[in-house]
Amino acid sequence: MTRIVTVGAAQLGPTGRHEPRSAVVKRMLEMMRAAKAAGCDLIVYPEVALTTFFPRWWMEDQAEIDSFFEREMPGPETLPLFEECLKLGIGMSFGYAELTEEEGRIRHFNTSILVDKKARIVGKYRKIHLPGHADNRSQFELQHLEKRYFETGNLGFGAWRTMGGVMGMCICNDRRWPETYRVLGLQGAELIMLGYNTPTNIPWEPIYDHLTDFHNHLCMQSGAYQNSTWVVGVAKAGLEEGSDFIGGSCIVAPSGEIVAMASTRADELITFRCDLDLARHNKETMFNFALNREPQAYGRIVEQKAAEPPAEEAQPIAEPLAGKQAAE
Amino acid sequence: MTRIVTVGAAQLGPTGRHEPRSAVVKRMLEMMRAAKAAGCDLIVYPEVALTTFFPRWWMEDQAEIDSFFEREMPGPETLPLFEECLKLGIGMSFGYAELTEEEGRIRHFNTSILVDKKARIVGKYRKIHLPGHADNRSQFELQHLEKRYFETGNLGFGAWRTMGGVMGMCICNDRRWPETYRVLGLQGAELIMLGYNTPTNIPWEPIYDHLTDFHNHLCMQSGAYQNSTWVVGVAKAGLEEGSDFIGGSCIVAPSGEIVAMASTRADELITFRCDLDLARHNKETMFNFALNREPQAYGRIVEQKAAEPPAEEAQPIAEPLAGKQAAE
Repeated sequence: MTRIVTVGAAQLGPTGRHEPRSAVVKRMLEMMRAAKAAGCDLIVYPEVALTTFFPRWWMEDQAEIDSFFEREMPGPETLPLFEECLKLGIGMSFGYAELTEEEGRIRHFNTSILVDKKARIVGKYRKIHLPGHADNRSQFELQHLEKRYFETGNLGFGAWRTMGGVMGMCICNDRRWPETYRVLGLQGAELIMLGYNTPTNIPWEPIYDHLTDFHNHLCMQSGAYQNSTWVVGVAKAGLEEGSDFIGGSCIVAPSGEIVAMASTRADELITFRCDLDLARHNKETMFNFALNREPQAYGRIVEQKAAEPPAEEAQPIAEPLAGKQAAE
Repeated sequence: MTRIVTVGAAQLGPTGRHEPRSAVVKRMLEMMRAAKAAGCDLIVYPEVALTTFFPRWWMEDQAEIDSFFEREMPGPETLPLFEECLKLGIGMSFGYAELTEEEGRIRHFNTSILVDKKARIVGKYRKIHLPGHADNRSQFELQHLEKRYFETGNLGFGAWRTMGGVMGMCICNDRRWPETYRVLGLQGAELIMLGYNTPTNIPWEPIYDHLTDFHNHLCMQSGAYQNSTWVVGVAKAGLEEGSDFIGGSCIVAPSGEIVAMASTRADELITFRCDLDLARHNKETMFNFALNREPQAYGRIVEQKAAEPPAEEAQPIAEPLAGKQAAE
């Protein structure tokens, strides 16, 4: 059996602070046409695809902050993406900063959507693992203020049966948390899409800066293998307003192998014919959850948030040589 | 700050069906002395270290089955390991098949213990993720009957404060499950020890046989990184009674990097000066659980065992171009 979904991972190069959405959408449309020409069923763009990655700046003017958010999806500037989807008969996923009124107040989320080949929005996800900080760390030229500008996503991790398979989404820092892939795997995800904006430097903890690309791939590869799913990871890459972003956009097979990877840190499309039926192998054997998971032993994962190390030195269970002395 | 625990990973080559425990213990003692000479504080041996890996055979004679199990720890044959620990002032961990009477009946577990420098047993773990099958698959020359010969571990995943750090254990197939590392990480584990017997061939699902070493390391590296802990993985390696076992014993840093790896598939000691304080970096930043985990979104991990894919095609959330037709 084969169940091919040809996927395009549409890495975007940097976007300037004052680059209008129309210019970004133009770049995205060019890649969408290239994807269709390459036989793609689905094109995946990065997190916060429509603007520069603004959480690097401390801002206090709410109007300035909100200028990076979308109040409707599609709006006038993003409608051409949907029109092109319908025209070409291609699905798409992209991330954007979402401003919405819910529960009687204005709310801000880091969101991604899944759009089918008829340009219908069939899935929506709001980022759950917000990285960085909410306080002003003005000693650093570039901050990471996602915890300031966004609320924690309130839609859970969702997976949708569409376009011939079960599709899941997550965003950027979510990919470092094995819980993300597992909650999607428990919904049978066969293909997980995610975008990221990942700087090569964390100023307040630079110890692992040289390993940023390794960690990016390590998390996606293990998440793919351990849940037997395709993972499509798409970067905003390159030097953007002083932020040096990794590239490394990739398509990971359910084996955990990277089967396609971007070669630049600019706008670049990579494609792969993903056979969703490959995801079945380990779902039915090694990672047959029904047969092999042991949830009775996983309680701490939901019962506690923080680590709780043992306070006391371990007490001996047995002292087979009690009373005997070491020779030394 | 540094908090060095020098660890020896004592890979064992194959052990024959009729090789007596005394011969294996002799090999283990030689490696323990070499470890001490190399400055080790702790030596880690593989899963079911004392005998051949018997779950490859379908057996029906309970006496024959039980001949591979330990009824006491230490017993006469394993006492020399404890005596040498005390003499040398070195800690150790090893796995063995455990036969015990609990709740009024004979029980069988795949167990590992942690022994401190005074030869006291301070930690005990019984394998939770039993791989393989319980039925007789006699069409295959070599089976994998852990689900037949062992009960699921009933002690949970434990971590113990001992020998200068917080130490966790798991066994073989446990390492493929991200829940294992997370439950240990939530107990503050700074060093996780595990042994494995991993064949290069799974006869009923050979599709990923060529990736066995990659998967072995992928799981341990991601588990180490995502929980910011050292991981020490120790193989029973080489051609044992027709089973071709991978080697690849390794010590993984909290960065996810493999910092030491075995070069053979025989008895081989590798050592590394593990600074447990390195585990603190990401525990306090990227993987600061108190700050960054979102357990309210992880419910499925404990609420369901099996995958539950959506039965129905996803319903549109929005149809911005409803009524419009594709050009084609």
